[in-house]
Amino acid sequence: MIKTAVVGATGYVGEELVRLLSAHPQAEIPYLTSHSNAGQKYSEIYRSFNHIISDTCIEENLEELAQKVDLIFIALPHGIACKKINKNILEKAKVIDLGADFRIKSKQVYEEWYKTEHKSTELLEEAVYGLSEWKRERVKNARLVANPGCYTTCSILSLLPVVKEGLIDTETIVIDAKSGVTGAGKSLSPGTHFTECNESVKAYKIASHRHTPEIEQELSEFVQKEIKLTFTPSLIPIQRGILANCYAKLVDKSIKYEDVREIFLKYYGKEYFIRIMEKDNYPETRWVRNSNFYDVGFKVDARTGNLVVAGAIDNLVKGASGQAIQNMNIMFGFDEKTGLESVPACL
Amino acid sequence: MIKTAVVGATGYVGEELVRLLSAHPQAEIPYLTSHSNAGQKYSEIYRSFNHIISDTCIEENLEELAQKVDLIFIALPHGIACKKINKNILEKAKVIDLGADFRIKSKQVYEEWYKTEHKSTELLEEAVYGLSEWKRERVKNARLVANPGCYTTCSILSLLPVVKEGLIDTETIVIDAKSGVTGAGKSLSPGTHFTECNESVKAYKIASHRHTPEIEQELSEFVQKEIKLTFTPSLIPIQRGILANCYAKLVDKSIKYEDVREIFLKYYGKEYFIRIMEKDNYPETRWVRNSNFYDVGFKVDARTGNLVVAGAIDNLVKGASGQAIQNMNIMFGFDEKTGLESVPACL
Amino acid sequence: MIKTAVVGATGYVGEELVRLLSAHPQAEIPYLTSHSNAGQKYSEIYRSFNHIISDTCIEENLEELAQKVDLIFIALPHGIACKKINKNILEKAKVIDLGADFRIKSKQVYEEWYKTEHKSTELLEEAVYGLSEWKRERVKNARLVANPGCYTTCSILSLLPVVKEGLIDTETIVIDAKSGVTGAGKSLSPGTHFTECNESVKAYKIASHRHTPEIEQELSEFVQKEIKLTFTPSLIPIQRGILANCYAKLVDKSIKYEDVREIFLKYYGKEYFIRIMEKDNYPETRWVRNSNFYDVGFKVDARTGNLVVAGAIDNLVKGASGQAIQNMNIMFGFDEKTGLESVPACL
Amino acid sequence: MIKTAVVGATGYVGEELVRLLSAHPQAEIPYLTSHSNAGQKYSEIYRSFNHIISDTCIEENLEELAQKVDLIFIALPHGIACKKINKNILEKAKVIDLGADFRIKSKQVYEEWYKTEHKSTELLEEAVYGLSEWKRERVKNARLVANPGCYTTCSILSLLPVVKEGLIDTETIVIDAKSGVTGAGKSLSPGTHFTECNESVKAYKIASHRHTPEIEQELSEFVQKEIKLTFTPSLIPIQRGILANCYAKLVDKSIKYEDVREIFLKYYGKEYFIRIMEKDNYPETRWVRNSNFYDVGFKVDARTGNLVVAGAIDNLVKGASGQAIQNMNIMFGFDEKTGLESVPACL
Repeated sequence: MIKTAVVGATGYVGEELVRLLSAHPQAEIPYLTSHSNAGQKYSEIYRSFNHIISDTCIEENLEELAQKVDLIFIALPHGIACKKINKNILEKAKVIDLGADFRIKSKQVYEEWYKTEHKSTELLEEAVYGLSEWKRERVKNARLVANPGCYTTCSILSLLPVVKEGLIDTETIVIDAKSGVTGAGKSLSPGTHFTECNESVKAYKIASHRHTPEIEQELSEFVQKEIKLTFTPSLIPIQRGILANCYAKLVDKSIKYEDVREIFLKYYGKEYFIRIMEKDNYPETRWVRNSNFYDVGFKVDARTGNLVVAGAIDNLVKGASGQAIQNMNIMFGFDEKTGLESVPACL
Repeated sequence: MIKTAVVGATGYVGEELVRLLSAHPQAEIPYLTSHSNAGQKYSEIYRSFNHIISDTCIEENLEELAQKVDLIFIALPHGIACKKINKNILEKAKVIDLGADFRIKSKQVYEEWYKTEHKSTELLEEAVYGLSEWKRERVKNARLVANPGCYTTCSILSLLPVVKEGLIDTETIVIDAKSGVTGAGKSLSPGTHFTECNESVKAYKIASHRHTPEIEQELSEFVQKEIKLTFTPSLIPIQRGILANCYAKLVDKSIKYEDVREIFLKYYGKEYFIRIMEKDNYPETRWVRNSNFYDVGFKVDARTGNLVVAGAIDNLVKGASGQAIQNMNIMFGFDEKTGLESVPACL
Repeated sequence: MIKTAVVGATGYVGEELVRLLSAHPQAEIPYLTSHSNAGQKYSEIYRSFNHIISDTCIEENLEELAQKVDLIFIALPHGIACKKINKNILEKAKVIDLGADFRIKSKQVYEEWYKTEHKSTELLEEAVYGLSEWKRERVKNARLVANPGCYTTCSILSLLPVVKEGLIDTETIVIDAKSGVTGAGKSLSPGTHFTECNESVKAYKIASHRHTPEIEQELSEFVQKEIKLTFTPSLIPIQRGILANCYAKLVDKSIKYEDVREIFLKYYGKEYFIRIMEKDNYPETRWVRNSNFYDVGFKVDARTGNLVVAGAIDNLVKGASGQAIQNMNIMFGFDEKTGLESVPACL
Repeated sequence: MIKTAVVGATGYVGEELVRLLSAHPQAEIPYLTSHSNAGQKYSEIYRSFNHIISDTCIEENLEELAQKVDLIFIALPHGIACKKINKNILEKAKVIDLGADFRIKSKQVYEEWYKTEHKSTELLEEAVYGLSEWKRERVKNARLVANPGCYTTCSILSLLPVVKEGLIDTETIVIDAKSGVTGAGKSLSPGTHFTECNESVKAYKIASHRHTPEIEQELSEFVQKEIKLTFTPSLIPIQRGILANCYAKLVDKSIKYEDVREIFLKYYGKEYFIRIMEKDNYPETRWVRNSNFYDVGFKVDARTGNLVVAGAIDNLVKGASGQAIQNMNIMFGFDEKTGLESVPACL
């Protein structure tokens, strides 16, 4: 049994961490921090936890926490974690940062997209990008894991097999992703006011969303050239779920559905959390709701020579807290599925 | 570890049984029956179970199943279970019927409200009405449990303490309940076609819903006279959740909030699955979503002398499959919370 | 063609006024005021008006507006209108106040429920409560109309015929109403953040909502004693619509459905905006969406002697801006339906 | 005042025709046909029309109708209209077919995608594709108008200006469109059962939706070669609205946002129903809800050389019935906006 702390426990990603960790047989969460709700009972903020968690939120002090726990989850807005984490802390406790601060390897790219100075560049190199299925070996020994973003997890999982095998022309990648509203977090804003996003669909931050460089970085790692792609997110009036439709020209018009399938099976055939759909079946976010699964379907459009890969995840689970726990499991030698085995709630 | 079968596994109540039993540490479900989907893989019907359940649905044969399992869950439309269950079966296996057939003790009342002949009246007396918190002792030794309806569970739990203690005038009870659309089940109908129930609210079967006599029967058990009440359900465009607002005149205008609270604490203060809200707080269905909790809040309207009790459950869990598993736990001597401890999914 | 101004044009009630007035053949709206958006184009706030309205919002100045227009609509939070309106203004222009300030005739009751001092008590007597179908004659000559609240319109229309005719015991009235989220307005709040009200239902302000005294006042006008009732609102995750289920004991168990129907026909049989459903049919908010209709169905529960009246309106139209325009039509001698004839948008 | 008939009046497209025509000052609709509801009052099927339309649905007989009316709207499933319309009918009345039968000019392409024989090829040539803004001159004198599909209207309007001006490489076009559930019509199906599409997003018919050849045909008309593109629709749990995100490589990396804007202004600057958003603003379906507007925004992704055009319409109005009425207005010499001027219902 390990001890963990959740820093930023009252945001949505924090809540999901607490929800999932509550059911984890090998991890305790004796410390829940929240700046805005310090001193308040956690179950008064999220009444779902009544009769389950009686803890009170505390002010966060990373130095102190590091001495008391084995692992710290950080679920804070970007720009904060990079100021708080340092080598001293990492010598005492492992850290999984669910924010963006350690995902982008290049300080320059980070600062360009996030419009803020990066305060902890010495840790950028050490941090391991925690896309569990692809970085398992490195995560295992990591002290600091940069947990991937939601759109990025779904996009990279959908594209990496075909990028790595050279099946698609990487200059033609377009990702059109749709997300539920929990992806926008707990902060109030007109765009997430019920009456202004319900019964509507909109694209936003077209070709300028911050998850773009993260996707590009991870895909580029596997080919000789720098990949640039167009990424467009849309907001959908549902609680949870991301569907990413990924498009690219196949390098050769002779490539068939079965060829693509074979490659997905090669990389994902033994992965528990990755489910490859049968031909002509495509993912629906409801099949992965509340779970750590990633479902994927694909279509070869012989008429145009395009490949379409459709991937779906729950943005709060595989796209955030679930993958963080999967990474925890890897880091501490637990079975990767531990605490993540509940059936998706499709109804 | 006990063996169970789910008869009618592909309906919504069946799916929730399978979902919850999949996570139950002391029960297996080797048999999933479905008349309409026999021969089909369960995970092709509910793709959420892909990588989790590889079973194929079988045709149901209660006699055979009874020999192979310890417990049979029946999740079939009313009028069917009462034809299939008999003493012979009950001698071999225990049965929890999630349908309506054994809930109403009076054959006459059943036939009046359900417009069909009851074929198994000899078992009506034996069947135990499985409202877990109130019938625990009888459920423990039952061979046949009639699992309560969704509206009824929420309504009875909300009213029994004050009915039993004589706090309200039982001739003035009005229940106004709202339910999510899963309550209407998997069968297609214009009223549950997305475009015809989304973005709308409607009351239906006003003062004529079949859960009415069930509520009346259970409340009447505790007072000297027959209780009649008015029950109105409304359909709400959400997946899950029931909110029941229950109204009645207090017998005495001097009764205060604290008096009512004391009575709720007396009956429910030690119940894990029953959560009494603080003063001026009322339940929201999201706090119980996907869980077996029943949340309750109440208000004494001193101006009118009315008591308002607002109760909330997840119709598919505490209102059906969750309570069925709670009953199973009681019947087999497991801790009542076993398999039902996951945190409500409030997001 | 009359000239009007909308004060508070950027709130939801304001937007609906502008939307409906845009299609009104006998009213112009040259003045749109907004304190928070003064100087901004109206179509930048509500892009739906692009290519339709090119006006810019102005700061409000009632004295000036009164000189320029025939009618001022005021759609401001309560407590503000009563400070701004005075006899001087009313001598120049008619006023329809869509807020609460002039609805409650008793200064004391207003201050008790609204927790703020009423600054314009000399106008309380003059103000006409604008429930169009019942106050037509008085509205006709009014200088100041207090436009009814949304819950109140739906509740009073549902109960007045049977209260007036003495069919129900007025000491037993319970109203359980459900409203879409636009009823809570444009201001951001956790309770109307998409992710915290979507997929959930909750009752709120049980027996303490401010529309209660307004309903009581209007019903009491028609009987010899002061009526007190219990009113409970619930929030439903839809954009628009109110459904009010109203309950009361019939004074006599011999009263039949047809008796109630006859009374509704007596009062409403010739009303264009009131549609009485056939027996065993009940309103759905979608049938009145975006329209000024009020639909009503009812049930006599012979088992309990209760009458249930279910009424539905669009909270922003018949419950606010539509009824305001209906009142305008009455005040200026236009056909009452003018500008309000579009078919409800049921899809 | 012209006389019209709506054939297939009880489907969703039919309902919207009736709703919009009810408010049209120059068109009557004395004939509403419905095979399945013949003999039933229209307002019993759509109770929204109570107090507005008292007509009864009749069996359809095109020959007879053609003698009585000036214009017949046909809103039937594909494969039916082409059997019913003939030259004889067109000599007596004009026809606007809202189905797919006369949209595809090539009998072979039609039969390949629709898997049914085309029975009226002699009329294929005569039929005018009714994309109002682009085919105005031909619609004016048409006897038979093939009203465009919903996805197609939104996609073609978004791409034609840049295709026509040669700004994009037409071999790289990808369209990712999202639609509300009314697009799937009134027929019951598991995929449109509330509980199975609410709170979920899915792509379907990837690269195989029947609107694909229609989009290709219309775009190809304006360039020297046959355009093939990849079209993917997704189902979104809202009532109405289509958002189409259209992607293509710009032919030249020096092309800027302003260049694209200029071209959109050139073609659409004077169109009432087409609204070009300001820079960095993108359409939301709520701004066009219930209206005939098409909103468009675009982004030049300088990093990749891609153009993204995001267009939004109401699928039932500009994507079906609204555009049909716009075409009627053109055919009969009415102002194009007649009957289509109501403000979008953004709340």
